[in-house]
Amino acid sequence: MNTTNTIYSGSAALLLCLSMSPFASAENVPQASSGYANFTSAGELVRPLGYREWIFIGTPLTPNDMNNGKASFPEFHNVYIDPASWADWKKTGGFPDGTLIVKELVSVGSKQAASGNGYFQGEYIGLEASVKSKQHFPDTPGHWGFFRFTVEISQALRKIAAAQPGENCMGCHQSKAAQDQVFTQHYPVLRAAAGKGSAGAGRLD
Amino acid sequence: MNTTNTIYSGSAALLLCLSMSPFASAENVPQASSGYANFTSAGELVRPLGYREWIFIGTPLTPNDMNNGKASFPEFHNVYIDPASWADWKKTGGFPDGTLIVKELVSVGSKQAASGNGYFQGEYIGLEASVKSKQHFPDTPGHWGFFRFTVEISQALRKIAAAQPGENCMGCHQSKAAQDQVFTQHYPVLRAAAGKGSAGAGRLD
Repeated sequence: MNTTNTIYSGSAALLLCLSMSPFASAENVPQASSGYANFTSAGELVRPLGYREWIFIGTPLTPNDMNNGKASFPEFHNVYIDPASWADWKKTGGFPDGTLIVKELVSVGSKQAASGNGYFQGEYIGLEASVKSKQHFPDTPGHWGFFRFTVEISQALRKIAAAQPGENCMGCHQSKAAQDQVFTQHYPVLRAAAGKGSAGAGRLD
Repeated sequence: MNTTNTIYSGSAALLLCLSMSPFASAENVPQASSGYANFTSAGELVRPLGYREWIFIGTPLTPNDMNNGKASFPEFHNVYIDPASWADWKKTGGFPDGTLIVKELVSVGSKQAASGNGYFQGEYIGLEASVKSKQHFPDTPGHWGFFRFTVEISQALRKIAAAQPGENCMGCHQSKAAQDQVFTQHYPVLRAAAGKGSAGAGRLD
């Protein structure tokens, strides 16, 4: 049996409000009342739900046909940050303990449309996540852990996932990401909002 | 002086909650209390604010280098739907009167990163929107109007915009978009959520 413990205790008012709105969604999976990143007693991350209503931060794309047919990441990556950590980011420009970033994998669908030749999003094919937690990752750079819910050669997703071995993700995130293991250089939403308060939610000028 | 009138009156509970949370943002521009699409007395659309906290639905990309150097839309399009219409979409799979869809233009930044060759989002360079309103557009297909806040050769945005002439947008949206003038075929978030209730916010299976 899985039990959960919460690693984030953010603004009570915000989270109370979220719990009243469709932005909070929890069915079938145990969820703590005030957090986004929930772990089993064995330290596995419970697959997040409702993340398509979180804050979208960017969509990197490295398609096969630009990488000799063998891209390491051939799909779109729709990347989201949890709303509580986003609220902190707008205030401080940093990632608080408890930050949960979700990367949803979307196949390249059509490459031709009325608007021209290009890349258009197809179907959902996977889900990955990273969590910043001093409690769960006391010894990793920045206290980040990386998780993969994708089931290979399938569109199924695991309900829980153990942290990936360090060599799978951390090396690149540590050496190439612009800020605190996160590729903020590719996320305009984060770059524009860092420390900007409500102006970070969309242009006020 | 601009005055505003509201074309959407959605769930009072949802909107009350949104008004208590950082998802609602309004500074400098007149906003009605319960709507997202606000018009001046002259029928111009007031530029939406806070849309980066709405629901992201997809990112079409038709770069110059895939269109003989002359793409009609050479930038990323980050597309969002307002939260009240999203709630309706999850219930019905249709766009209610008052739907406001925002398309934020983002330049192609780097084309090379640690993850491979590809396309990575650069800077914000424009903003467009479409609104479904029987009151404001009684005679257009589906009652949609299209707006452009972008100021050419500048990163500035207009605060208000008049509806675009029909030939600028409607023809293509009417003949090529999969559902009700919206290119749902390129928006996996909408496709996966249509009529699915809370499951539409992120995978529950």
